[in-house]
Amino acid sequence: MGLFTKDIKTLNDLFVHQLKDIYYAENRIAKALPQMIKKATNAALKEGFELHLTQTETHIKNVEEVFRMHGVAVEAVTCPAIDGIIKEAEEVAGEVADKQVLDAALIAAAQAVEHYEMTRYGTLVAWAKRLGRADCAAVLEKNLKDEKDADAKLTALADAEVNRLAA
Amino acid sequence: MGLFTKDIKTLNDLFVHQLKDIYYAENRIAKALPQMIKKATNAALKEGFELHLTQTETHIKNVEEVFRMHGVAVEAVTCPAIDGIIKEAEEVAGEVADKQVLDAALIAAAQAVEHYEMTRYGTLVAWAKRLGRADCAAVLEKNLKDEKDADAKLTALADAEVNRLAA
Repeated sequence: MGLFTKDIKTLNDLFVHQLKDIYYAENRIAKALPQMIKKATNAALKEGFELHLTQTETHIKNVEEVFRMHGVAVEAVTCPAIDGIIKEAEEVAGEVADKQVLDAALIAAAQAVEHYEMTRYGTLVAWAKRLGRADCAAVLEKNLKDEKDADAKLTALADAEVNRLAA
Repeated sequence: MGLFTKDIKTLNDLFVHQLKDIYYAENRIAKALPQMIKKATNAALKEGFELHLTQTETHIKNVEEVFRMHGVAVEAVTCPAIDGIIKEAEEVAGEVADKQVLDAALIAAAQAVEHYEMTRYGTLVAWAKRLGRADCAAVLEKNLKDEKDADAKLTALADAEVNRLAA
């Protein structure tokens, strides 16, 4: 974002802008996940990150589909929010020596990413519906559901296993 | 974060680190909210932001209380995640000319902030319980509940009024 000035005039402009933002974010996450997979020790966590990488690739395709359905060019705008969230995740991971504590830190980092995506997809779905694009909303809702499910799975894994082992 | 290297050895270290991170974030939010209040046009939204500023001041005091209960000095560490989320909010707000579209953008930005806080407090509560600090968890849960309530109120306001006016 921040590449232009006062260029957002309508809710539709805002919707398209937000779509470019989440498109950047999903691509950024796809690049960050292989490092998280490598760092994770817990087998279920590693597997969860691997599944999420596959899902992220599908999410990217879904967002590209929404661009096409809505008749706008596929494009990304820099998203300082996801850059900050991932920067923080990398910094914290670099500070943890113990493998089991690192797993707990990785879950927290992944949940911060999920929550960012949840809020953005929630907003995009609401705006798409308001703009009369129930078709776009339906595609975006698939991504939203995956993010919510991924977050719930991480909470369950943290409670059942990872935090206990880290303590 | 990122001010030290391999200094996080235990889940307790990670908990304290995360506490310093949310302390920074809450203070950053308290500084950003007056600008959002000023920019908001919708009366209910303006009022909501004003209430949230009061709540944020209470959250800061609650986090300070947790530092004291846990016997560590009150301290903040730079949190690139919240810096990025707020930077993005400011950039987008600067790009929107129409007041009613700006209100929709402000709600989306505020919800991104809420979601960041929700994920961090969720993690902190889980770690506090695992560390046998149910007392700290209870205080942090108060903040978590406020953030969830604030997010739900923003969704309701967006659906009922702001997005309709922006469309």
